[in-house]
Amino acid sequence: MCNTSFSERGDKETVESGAFLMPKYDRDGLIVAVVTDVASGEVLMVGYMNEEALKRTIETGEAWYWSRSRQGFWKKGETSGQVQTVHEILTDCDQDALVLKVSVAGNGATCHVGYRSCFFRKITTPTDGAVGLERVESEKVYDPAEVYGKG
Amino acid sequence: MCNTSFSERGDKETVESGAFLMPKYDRDGLIVAVVTDVASGEVLMVGYMNEEALKRTIETGEAWYWSRSRQGFWKKGETSGQVQTVHEILTDCDQDALVLKVSVAGNGATCHVGYRSCFFRKITTPTDGAVGLERVESEKVYDPAEVYGKG
Repeated sequence: MCNTSFSERGDKETVESGAFLMPKYDRDGLIVAVVTDVASGEVLMVGYMNEEALKRTIETGEAWYWSRSRQGFWKKGETSGQVQTVHEILTDCDQDALVLKVSVAGNGATCHVGYRSCFFRKITTPTDGAVGLERVESEKVYDPAEVYGKG
Repeated sequence: MCNTSFSERGDKETVESGAFLMPKYDRDGLIVAVVTDVASGEVLMVGYMNEEALKRTIETGEAWYWSRSRQGFWKKGETSGQVQTVHEILTDCDQDALVLKVSVAGNGATCHVGYRSCFFRKITTPTDGAVGLERVESEKVYDPAEVYGKG
């Protein structure tokens, strides 16, 4: 591990146009990370990082997150083998969001439901009433029951 | 306006594999929306919607957000002309995030700093010390000072 450090938040101009990373965390100490496939550009998932997860990601070149549901560090792929090698990390104007361009190891899927992307459904416009969902991925990459066991 | 409505949250199986939109909002009543260019797939910005903003977006086909800093509805492009026509909305497995595939009107830029995407900088890996940023967009699409005035 090297001595990765982030600069203190500067003024609006410095944050928006400056040459240093100054991440803005929410009140839980988290920053949102949009994960895209480095080859296709497809959005694969949205995760959250705290400062330590972001440092581990930068230092190791593999994606680490903070699991909000489990309240713990989560190295993507540790159980599933779907490890994310990080090729590039972008940040936005106010530095409160990240984009990670990754390639996925193992079976190449990202979603625990079995699809390539977690965004495997699109909204169908209702003529009246409840908004529906329709699958945009025709089939699963793998059967989660075979990886994680049934039930 | 039609009678757009969202279904109540179901159990895990229904949320993850069902055919109805059941958005999960955070404790501020917001859901994160990743905005991508429908043609290139590039991530343009990350915004937040409350239920009403999402309904307006679905009903009008143009993107509405909830501004956390201004605590009010924000129709993207109302001032700048950078209106987002929404071609598709995806949701993820646990339905707590959205992807909007849009085309941008006006000067075609999304970022108020002047770039096409808000993610116009990438992280540079430090050999030691503070993490830096480097521009990935070579030039601005427009000069914000000419649109919004200086200072």
